[in-house]
Amino acid sequence: MTDEQGILFILSGPSGVGKGTVRKELFNQITDLKYSISMTTRDRRTGEINGVDYFYKTKQEFEHLIEQNQLLEYAQYVNNYYGTPRAYVEETLAAGHDVFLEIEVQGALQVKENFPEGVFIFLFPPSLEELKNRIVDRGTESTDLVLNRLNEAKNEIKQMNAYDYVVVNDQVDVAVTKIQSIIQSEHLKRERIEQQYKKFLEDEIS
Amino acid sequence: MTDEQGILFILSGPSGVGKGTVRKELFNQITDLKYSISMTTRDRRTGEINGVDYFYKTKQEFEHLIEQNQLLEYAQYVNNYYGTPRAYVEETLAAGHDVFLEIEVQGALQVKENFPEGVFIFLFPPSLEELKNRIVDRGTESTDLVLNRLNEAKNEIKQMNAYDYVVVNDQVDVAVTKIQSIIQSEHLKRERIEQQYKKFLEDEIS
Repeated sequence: MTDEQGILFILSGPSGVGKGTVRKELFNQITDLKYSISMTTRDRRTGEINGVDYFYKTKQEFEHLIEQNQLLEYAQYVNNYYGTPRAYVEETLAAGHDVFLEIEVQGALQVKENFPEGVFIFLFPPSLEELKNRIVDRGTESTDLVLNRLNEAKNEIKQMNAYDYVVVNDQVDVAVTKIQSIIQSEHLKRERIEQQYKKFLEDEIS
Repeated sequence: MTDEQGILFILSGPSGVGKGTVRKELFNQITDLKYSISMTTRDRRTGEINGVDYFYKTKQEFEHLIEQNQLLEYAQYVNNYYGTPRAYVEETLAAGHDVFLEIEVQGALQVKENFPEGVFIFLFPPSLEELKNRIVDRGTESTDLVLNRLNEAKNEIKQMNAYDYVVVNDQVDVAVTKIQSIIQSEHLKRERIEQQYKKFLEDEIS
């Protein structure tokens, strides 16, 4: 007895917390999770494949999809749109696959509005000190910029109320194990499999 | 960051589904889960220890506790009371330990009324056919009795709406892994650790 519909899992958290690393390690271990493919208006680079790396659209096409509420979230960077197409997510879920989306906090909050039935996981820094170290390690940002980004992280942490689960990223492998537990237990929720047990009850006792 | 309070997990399901086997295997693997100790009015047998095997009480003491709503559930069998004392559960949870209770469906529904913040797991038979085989294998019950118990099981399955999770017991080790996922992910729920992240936000950025 399993639910036939897949589940959309959203991994988010402040920048510098290590979302990308956790997502990569998760995909090294789980194979039946589908990574959400983004849509973009930026040019396709050599070697990139439409429908694998991104769905490539013109600006006009993209804006048309925005108007039709066909994006679970989107943003603009350097004159290009990037977003999560609703159709791909819904079709993949309907085919019984879980979809996994790793995304910034602002994007996750948009997804929450457009797809509240998703399971929202907040990746949390072990401490503010550690988050500061990670931001500093990343590059050559000035003290002011580091403080700005830390304050931004604090504001993002205040958005945590929109999330279902919180996973502290102190060790990547531990965080991945916890996310796997969330994925497994979400499939065991009673309300997801109500249809199946109703079928069970209709069976004849032989 | 962890929640400081333990969680009460209730494993239940129709008779014959294998609750005891799953519970034993779970306790072979997890050590920091505390098994809920029952209270009884039956005589203490040689070798049994008060507060380990059971809490032993007189009939009068037990009935006094019932009046004071000090039992999460109770039932009478062969002139003796058996029940789950609220105080032991609450003290163990307050000390930061999870408590695990394996119980019949009727008892679980009483616990649900008295302690709705518990996490209720329904152990589900792989099929009615399999459940029938298990009931038949148990002993020398007549065909009528087997059919009665199967109908009772069907009625108990209809109570599943009161539960949070459903785990199919097709293989004991798989069922145990699923229950472990539930235990882990419940501790990751955002609302359980809200206090901790509020403390985090009060930290100074150094």
